[in-house]
Amino acid sequence: MEKIKPRTLSGFMELLPQKQAQFERMLHILRQTYALYGFAPLDTPVLEASEVLLAKGGGETEKQIYRFQKGDADLAMRFDLTVPLAKYVALHYGQLTFPFRRYQIGKVYRGERAQRGRFREFYQADIDIIGDGQLDIINEAEIPSIIYRTFTSMGLQRFKIRINNRKVLSGFFASLGLQDRAGEVMRTIDKLEKIGPEQVRAILLDESGVSPEQAQQILDFITLPGGTAGILSALAGYKGRDPLLDQGIDELQTVARYMGDFGVPDSHFAIDLTIARGLDYYTGTVYETTLLDHPEIGSICSGGRYDNLAEYYTDKQLPGVGISIGLTRLFFVLEDKGLLNEEPPACPADALILPMTDDLGPAIALATRLRAHGLRVQLHCEKKKFKAKITYADRLHIPFVIFLGEDEIRQEVVTLKQLATGEQVSVPFDAALETMQAVLAAREQGTVIRE
Amino acid sequence: MEKIKPRTLSGFMELLPQKQAQFERMLHILRQTYALYGFAPLDTPVLEASEVLLAKGGGETEKQIYRFQKGDADLAMRFDLTVPLAKYVALHYGQLTFPFRRYQIGKVYRGERAQRGRFREFYQADIDIIGDGQLDIINEAEIPSIIYRTFTSMGLQRFKIRINNRKVLSGFFASLGLQDRAGEVMRTIDKLEKIGPEQVRAILLDESGVSPEQAQQILDFITLPGGTAGILSALAGYKGRDPLLDQGIDELQTVARYMGDFGVPDSHFAIDLTIARGLDYYTGTVYETTLLDHPEIGSICSGGRYDNLAEYYTDKQLPGVGISIGLTRLFFVLEDKGLLNEEPPACPADALILPMTDDLGPAIALATRLRAHGLRVQLHCEKKKFKAKITYADRLHIPFVIFLGEDEIRQEVVTLKQLATGEQVSVPFDAALETMQAVLAAREQGTVIRE
Repeated sequence: MEKIKPRTLSGFMELLPQKQAQFERMLHILRQTYALYGFAPLDTPVLEASEVLLAKGGGETEKQIYRFQKGDADLAMRFDLTVPLAKYVALHYGQLTFPFRRYQIGKVYRGERAQRGRFREFYQADIDIIGDGQLDIINEAEIPSIIYRTFTSMGLQRFKIRINNRKVLSGFFASLGLQDRAGEVMRTIDKLEKIGPEQVRAILLDESGVSPEQAQQILDFITLPGGTAGILSALAGYKGRDPLLDQGIDELQTVARYMGDFGVPDSHFAIDLTIARGLDYYTGTVYETTLLDHPEIGSICSGGRYDNLAEYYTDKQLPGVGISIGLTRLFFVLEDKGLLNEEPPACPADALILPMTDDLGPAIALATRLRAHGLRVQLHCEKKKFKAKITYADRLHIPFVIFLGEDEIRQEVVTLKQLATGEQVSVPFDAALETMQAVLAAREQGTVIRE
Repeated sequence: MEKIKPRTLSGFMELLPQKQAQFERMLHILRQTYALYGFAPLDTPVLEASEVLLAKGGGETEKQIYRFQKGDADLAMRFDLTVPLAKYVALHYGQLTFPFRRYQIGKVYRGERAQRGRFREFYQADIDIIGDGQLDIINEAEIPSIIYRTFTSMGLQRFKIRINNRKVLSGFFASLGLQDRAGEVMRTIDKLEKIGPEQVRAILLDESGVSPEQAQQILDFITLPGGTAGILSALAGYKGRDPLLDQGIDELQTVARYMGDFGVPDSHFAIDLTIARGLDYYTGTVYETTLLDHPEIGSICSGGRYDNLAEYYTDKQLPGVGISIGLTRLFFVLEDKGLLNEEPPACPADALILPMTDDLGPAIALATRLRAHGLRVQLHCEKKKFKAKITYADRLHIPFVIFLGEDEIRQEVVTLKQLATGEQVSVPFDAALETMQAVLAAREQGTVIRE
């Protein structure tokens, strides 16, 4: 028979089992953390009607989308989880209870040009809190605490959550008389970290028609010194110039104050007035999260407050706040930078049983008993040499091998070998179980990420 | 702005939050059970190159597939998890350790004609054990115990796992001189339950050119009486007629014997010599699982032993055994038949905190403290009337509401209200935590399915 060469499309992540186990641990931590904050899991189709998915239309997104006809239907694969959420909330509005807190972890698709670290299929992990007509500012303070807990639960320590408030920027620009150029100016100052203040000044002067005095005021404003306390106190001095600016300053103050109560240590967040997040979508607090040692990879978790989740589908005003983690890219980066914890190595089983008798009954009973105690167990009954079976356990990093022969069965013991130490004992079931549980509990301590 | 009507494509399941929570519990049980048996989680792309996905080609599948061009690429959405597994094992053969045990739970796509209970996007939950060149029969006995544990963990009791062995059928047909019509005859007897013995006889005589004597022998064989023990003992009497038949009988005997050791009670399995599973793919033990009270919905978990997983991609012989659960359809059927347990109702949080002070600091600290104990907590700080906040908890079935006002803060207590009973107490944190943990532990006892 002629063979087809097996291959996986470029831009599609496909992991070997041990890497997959690490990825699954990240998924598990995300689900668990989001649940602690009262978010309900949600799942929506990967395929939607194109007119629904592209209601907003236009732009780069539309070019990247996987879109096709099937029969009469014009279909498209989702390119993010926000548009499906908007559709979901608009469609099921009458059956939902607000504020509606949902998390969704799922694959999204973008037919981009393939390059290293860019994916065409990737997981996003999103949380959003959607209000019906209104949503309290406190929600904007809770979000960073979820970011903090998520990453520290994974073992990440050296990161910073940077926050800003779009009202502060818009209001300040308005106070300078630049309200009709606010979007443009925001996109420019968003590049400060990348291109430096003089480049920003040049673009503001040359392309946005900002006066030298205004440019200086903008640069002074966005680089206010003194950390969180210093910036907040300096901002207080700007009050009274513009109502939107005042509101933004109040919101920023409230968020910063409550973030501490929510458990985010000062070391892990900063007010950064240069953060604008490109999208016009955002209207209040915005977030970015950066790795202190790898600023070059950009934000690993971003989001913000918006006023109209579903304006393309409904007249209902649905304000919300949300964040998104690009999980596939994050995993790629962590691996690339050597930040994935390889110790202890992930393994598909806690124990491998090697039956040494023709009758497999006692070995099967032993496996069933261990599983009843929550241990992950494999039986190895293949016709292979003893050494090959030990190699199998070694290669899969299974920590324990259990031998069960005539002697053990007669003496009502099991022979337990810990591969890492080579230690081997013949002990009754309960003693073996206790030993294994202790070692496995210690292995559990390891985090997914190790800096 | 003109609005686009939000809608979800027909044939695509999209659940409301409470139903989604039930579905997630099923997913959780599947992951947990598969892990206990030493299966590693695997994830493969939803999109593959069409030539890879359709290597086998032809048939009904190809018409149903979602296939499209993007740039130069001819792409297709996966229609099952078996072909991607075959590709994966052939592609990564050198980096895998055999026997390779993997589970995969993911969405697959078939552009079928839409009808009630048929889905175009649906979850499959698959496990497979793949050997390199060989795979011991013991694996075929372990699989039913995984089916048994999976469904009983969900709360299902009234089901039966029916097993057969393709070698028994093929061998028996060969002993009658019908080896070149084996596939045809198998497909006919597979319909016995649906059309009855006389219809089967008629088809065998009219369409397959089987003699009346042969047809009688076939009918006698596939309806051997006496249950597992009776059938096995009767089969022993058929030995010596054909080597394949003999091998099949031995295998069936081994599987039946070890299934008991693996913990499948006699009440939950049966040998059924009519089961053939249409596909030529299977070569040994085959499985079907039916609900005793709803035979009309057919098998909810099927699979079997095969000899060549990846013959379209590689010359390597990769025998395996696996099963698949069509999870989306199963969920639909369970709901349709009223078998989903609605008590206690699923909820997104264990406790809702209602701060009664302007300063939210103490309420936030309380939420953080409860979350540290693993409780799922929401804060309700919206500007809503008290009654509306209680209604919110009621609608979401959140079991506990906690009030925190000036009095409570001064007296270092919390006021805890259990909505189901109306009971309300003001007690210190530890006492409140204990009460909540006890009630929540009791709620945890409920299974997903209730017959």
